[in-house]
Amino acid sequence: MTLRVGFIGYGFMGQAHANALARLPMFFPEAPDTDRHVLCGRNEKRVASAAERFGFTHTTDDWETLVDQVDVLYNLGPNDLHAEPTIAALEADVHVLCEKPLAASIGNAERMVAAARESDAVAACAFNYRYVPALRLAKDLVDQGALGEIRHVRGKYLVDWQVDPAHPWVWRNDVERAGYGQVGDVGSHTIDLARWLVGNITRVSGRLETFVDERPAPDGSGKRPVTTDDVYLATASFESGAVGVFEGSSVASGHKATNAIEIIGSEGAIRFDLERLNELEVYDADRRGYERIIITDDDDPYGDRWWPAGHTIGWEHTVVHENYEFLRAIAGEGDDIVSFGEALTVQRIVDAIVRSDDQGRQIAVETDG
Amino acid sequence: MTLRVGFIGYGFMGQAHANALARLPMFFPEAPDTDRHVLCGRNEKRVASAAERFGFTHTTDDWETLVDQVDVLYNLGPNDLHAEPTIAALEADVHVLCEKPLAASIGNAERMVAAARESDAVAACAFNYRYVPALRLAKDLVDQGALGEIRHVRGKYLVDWQVDPAHPWVWRNDVERAGYGQVGDVGSHTIDLARWLVGNITRVSGRLETFVDERPAPDGSGKRPVTTDDVYLATASFESGAVGVFEGSSVASGHKATNAIEIIGSEGAIRFDLERLNELEVYDADRRGYERIIITDDDDPYGDRWWPAGHTIGWEHTVVHENYEFLRAIAGEGDDIVSFGEALTVQRIVDAIVRSDDQGRQIAVETDG
Amino acid sequence: MTLRVGFIGYGFMGQAHANALARLPMFFPEAPDTDRHVLCGRNEKRVASAAERFGFTHTTDDWETLVDQVDVLYNLGPNDLHAEPTIAALEADVHVLCEKPLAASIGNAERMVAAARESDAVAACAFNYRYVPALRLAKDLVDQGALGEIRHVRGKYLVDWQVDPAHPWVWRNDVERAGYGQVGDVGSHTIDLARWLVGNITRVSGRLETFVDERPAPDGSGKRPVTTDDVYLATASFESGAVGVFEGSSVASGHKATNAIEIIGSEGAIRFDLERLNELEVYDADRRGYERIIITDDDDPYGDRWWPAGHTIGWEHTVVHENYEFLRAIAGEGDDIVSFGEALTVQRIVDAIVRSDDQGRQIAVETDG
Amino acid sequence: MTLRVGFIGYGFMGQAHANALARLPMFFPEAPDTDRHVLCGRNEKRVASAAERFGFTHTTDDWETLVDQVDVLYNLGPNDLHAEPTIAALEADVHVLCEKPLAASIGNAERMVAAARESDAVAACAFNYRYVPALRLAKDLVDQGALGEIRHVRGKYLVDWQVDPAHPWVWRNDVERAGYGQVGDVGSHTIDLARWLVGNITRVSGRLETFVDERPAPDGSGKRPVTTDDVYLATASFESGAVGVFEGSSVASGHKATNAIEIIGSEGAIRFDLERLNELEVYDADRRGYERIIITDDDDPYGDRWWPAGHTIGWEHTVVHENYEFLRAIAGEGDDIVSFGEALTVQRIVDAIVRSDDQGRQIAVETDG
Repeated sequence: MTLRVGFIGYGFMGQAHANALARLPMFFPEAPDTDRHVLCGRNEKRVASAAERFGFTHTTDDWETLVDQVDVLYNLGPNDLHAEPTIAALEADVHVLCEKPLAASIGNAERMVAAARESDAVAACAFNYRYVPALRLAKDLVDQGALGEIRHVRGKYLVDWQVDPAHPWVWRNDVERAGYGQVGDVGSHTIDLARWLVGNITRVSGRLETFVDERPAPDGSGKRPVTTDDVYLATASFESGAVGVFEGSSVASGHKATNAIEIIGSEGAIRFDLERLNELEVYDADRRGYERIIITDDDDPYGDRWWPAGHTIGWEHTVVHENYEFLRAIAGEGDDIVSFGEALTVQRIVDAIVRSDDQGRQIAVETDG
Repeated sequence: MTLRVGFIGYGFMGQAHANALARLPMFFPEAPDTDRHVLCGRNEKRVASAAERFGFTHTTDDWETLVDQVDVLYNLGPNDLHAEPTIAALEADVHVLCEKPLAASIGNAERMVAAARESDAVAACAFNYRYVPALRLAKDLVDQGALGEIRHVRGKYLVDWQVDPAHPWVWRNDVERAGYGQVGDVGSHTIDLARWLVGNITRVSGRLETFVDERPAPDGSGKRPVTTDDVYLATASFESGAVGVFEGSSVASGHKATNAIEIIGSEGAIRFDLERLNELEVYDADRRGYERIIITDDDDPYGDRWWPAGHTIGWEHTVVHENYEFLRAIAGEGDDIVSFGEALTVQRIVDAIVRSDDQGRQIAVETDG
Repeated sequence: MTLRVGFIGYGFMGQAHANALARLPMFFPEAPDTDRHVLCGRNEKRVASAAERFGFTHTTDDWETLVDQVDVLYNLGPNDLHAEPTIAALEADVHVLCEKPLAASIGNAERMVAAARESDAVAACAFNYRYVPALRLAKDLVDQGALGEIRHVRGKYLVDWQVDPAHPWVWRNDVERAGYGQVGDVGSHTIDLARWLVGNITRVSGRLETFVDERPAPDGSGKRPVTTDDVYLATASFESGAVGVFEGSSVASGHKATNAIEIIGSEGAIRFDLERLNELEVYDADRRGYERIIITDDDDPYGDRWWPAGHTIGWEHTVVHENYEFLRAIAGEGDDIVSFGEALTVQRIVDAIVRSDDQGRQIAVETDG
Repeated sequence: MTLRVGFIGYGFMGQAHANALARLPMFFPEAPDTDRHVLCGRNEKRVASAAERFGFTHTTDDWETLVDQVDVLYNLGPNDLHAEPTIAALEADVHVLCEKPLAASIGNAERMVAAARESDAVAACAFNYRYVPALRLAKDLVDQGALGEIRHVRGKYLVDWQVDPAHPWVWRNDVERAGYGQVGDVGSHTIDLARWLVGNITRVSGRLETFVDERPAPDGSGKRPVTTDDVYLATASFESGAVGVFEGSSVASGHKATNAIEIIGSEGAIRFDLERLNELEVYDADRRGYERIIITDDDDPYGDRWWPAGHTIGWEHTVVHENYEFLRAIAGEGDDIVSFGEALTVQRIVDAIVRSDDQGRQIAVETDG
């Protein structure tokens, strides 16, 4: 059986997932076969061009049509377009991989979770950094107790793509479309990693700021207001007793992709930075300092799928791994995906950080997503 | 004129300051002459031994005697012993260099500030990291506007000296004597640096935790409770509009002295880590990434006082610089000290972080210390 | 027109090149189309399995058959099998991409160069590290004179894949099949990079050593002698006046893929390490230290072909770029390949290093390959 | 008994050693007492000023006078002035600490060794980097066999103090006075460390170059020729079977004090860089990568003499340690010095590198200094 796949969205993430699907047969031959079937987008010309490049055989500008024609939906559109197509697909038992954050509002996210619960299809949220080999090794170390009792977590995701105030306004700068600023965009990644590695978060305190509060309209029509944060900070309390700090920015001068996490326990510690995604730094009681490890050995996570030790992989490989695990889940052969329930919990934490900033107090988080 | 100097305290900080005074004549010959005159401590034998080693000619176990005999008092005792001798000295117009944090309570800190205001003597608090050459260069860059509008500050001070639960209880684990845990011990350094570099802090949100809540009594008599935090986290709002995050720990596995600060502005950024105190990393709009600079050139801060370029200095040199600036202030030739007023402001921020954790809400900070 | 491609070899390099060809349509759509046509290898079962995985439609165990059936030959076999199929292909005007080093002997390498000269086909040697974006940026800096007069070059390639003496004997340990040990295997990469970046090498002095002189036979039949070096060192003089040092090892404890090069000039310097292939460190007269740059911007070499800034690529992308440039050369649209003449020059330097070690003296290198 | 000490030379090294003597009583109280007695130099005014600053009670412009008046001679003058005063002192049984390299010629170095052999005094050569705590820990690891069989050594010492061609001519640029260029100045340090850590060197091959061949005369009288190398490279064979590469430069753009050494063995590896002298990177078979260790613990070499763990030392502390060990040797309580015999062996290696470059062949080294 070949799964017919449809994508909503043909930008950066569209190419990343198309590439992932194209690469699976050579590197993960046991993954279910897929057919890049329909590509959906509004601009006919661009969709056609992208479809040719990404290997799709059909195009449409109507997501309802798309849902009817496929077994699997990749929802890669802006956050405010996540809910409707996803819910429609799940109602039709079409599997869904939805980009993060789950939705532009808690209400829609909850509706998506409900739809997933009712559906026979697999629903996953695309938190791709769970599939970085170094972070999977980190999770193994945490789960094995190599770090002892986890006490102190530090997650940050600093980028500079909007540091120039002349960078045009995009939908991510609009709270209606994006739902959240950096706290949702990069912050949701950090929070998902922290939860995945350390467990439930029970309380947060947040601090958001918008440093560049208007940007040139992309169509040249003057300025448009930025209604989302461009920097967020938060402290967090974990159910386990650990505490943590999270930071995100899209105006972080000097930072291209500092998606970094550090975990300190009573017996050890790890640290990771996406700019050096083939590396993990590990400390434990038998060491005197952090050890820098290149995570490319055959017995490292996904290490036997790629190249001999020392031959590094790149960012896109995290998306390949993610697609592999998602398709395996569809085939009933695994469950290594981020469920909509988990994604909703992440979003509740994001939302709590926003409210905390607003209210000037700590906010308790519902964790039963 | 030679200044007669008396020290209360003969441990680590006693040696650091004695060493600093001993080194000034060769490297800062224009500094006022000093005579290491009286060393004060409770244990007669140990004080005598330390006095010989540190070059003091007299000893006493009575700080009141000491105050009568000297022109300058170095108050290096536990936090709860800062107030009385310092106030007595200032009332006698004896100059005071007091270790940080200023006191074990806001009330005492305020009394010390009042005494300093009334006195003709110089009163300074020993925030020695202001005297790291790399950080002075950082301050120059910030002050010159090389970083543009400051937006995002990250200060952390992570050490592991009490990560072993078998590490004995010390006075720093006692809230009565220390006043605060890590938020006061390492946190006050971070906060002082952040204020010095970026300006006033107006609001904070804090999160404190005590992971090791009892420790072996040093006299072998069972366990004693730890009544101070061993990890603190905080977010902060600066008057300028910048936001920041602070962290401190004495149980940070794998960290010997990660006293690090990063400042991100609209046009540039800097980062520093005390473990590599001769280095500063600098980013600005003419660069594409951080540049690692060795701060040992002749025209670097204090660079002409030590060795040729490339010959690094160590931690203790920060104390030498601090002593130099303090003695110059006494001589009326400079004002590059941390006033008690500033130290009180730091302590108010520390205190606000504690109360914020307690009350689960942001706390506004009085900044008119 | 679609180019029919045949591979000799289906191991690591077979997969790397098959992957490269499979990825070109999505990322380099203007590259000539290719058909993975025939895969050649001795073990029928394994070839069939690899062909399926790598996307080849036919297999053979006879390279002569293969040459008859294709437009392009990828010669990925052991060094002693480079010459005959390559020469046969070139005589039939079949384009050839041959793995490095060019041959197991200077004599065969010279025959290959002669065949390339006589042929209408394109002949290229697979020195893939020329296609690392960071190194192409380095070359741009050198060529623009940003480093001033180049003086000092340091190239090393340290790996640990044979550090365990229990690692089985492989053909690379046999001087008959490999021609050279590490000086040819990793050393040829270093020498090619150094020549490409800095220019002709006129004299070398070499030092070779074999630390593990026998290894377990792969078939379990006792031990087999290692007749190649596992560590080589060399100094080199460049035509330009620069001097350099080269090192390579396959027994370098702690090193997974330290393929590093540093170039110091009168006005600037660069350094690169393959373990962090998305980074280049750059120094120039306007800086005070090395600046770490992430080479993923749109206007970086090949930067517009992959992901947005900050999203890193991996080792395999160097092979994609190499294939792109090779196919473009076949299409007559570019000349960014490593010619057999250049590869012969590299090999002459390798050979001179071996003879220098043997004779205990500097050896002049013929540079008119 | 207090040792009367005399210095020839009052520049950088004069201050470094004066500082060391001044600091011993507080940190190494068991070291023999010293009296900074006579300071010798040609320029009466400058000597007087330096004497005051460095704590000397007498001055002279005549080294013969000095030798008569002291128990210990520190010979800190230019290389061509090492032999005569040192020999005179040793003949008078005055102890000598002589700066490196031992002399400006092998002949004089041999005369100095002979004088040391005949004398009852202690003679030591000031290779201060043996006294870096991190390198002493490295030596312990090597000596304990933690690295297994040593195979591959890499030593480099790259500085930029003469990269500017406008930097004035100094005596180090004159082969008559200095004897050697960088191969003797920084190279002798590298070679001493390599020998100390790995053992005897039996053969070398050298490559020297002078990139800036004239410099402005310090007195403004036009240009003076540079008759020493400013870059040297060498390969070396050790008696143990290891091989190594050495590099030095005084025109290394971007390098302030890259005095680095790496040692790779069959079971482990270490690396060190003076720019981060409180750190050692260590790899062994139980690790997967290098571990970065801060060498400031109480049980690290000299760790109990300075500050609590995490409080770093600087370059000058290596000179303090060196002075301590030298004075202990004088007191008959230790032998942790670099003998003139060893210094001569280092110089023979330096000399062999020069001759190798000259003759274009490997040179065997006499190792029976």
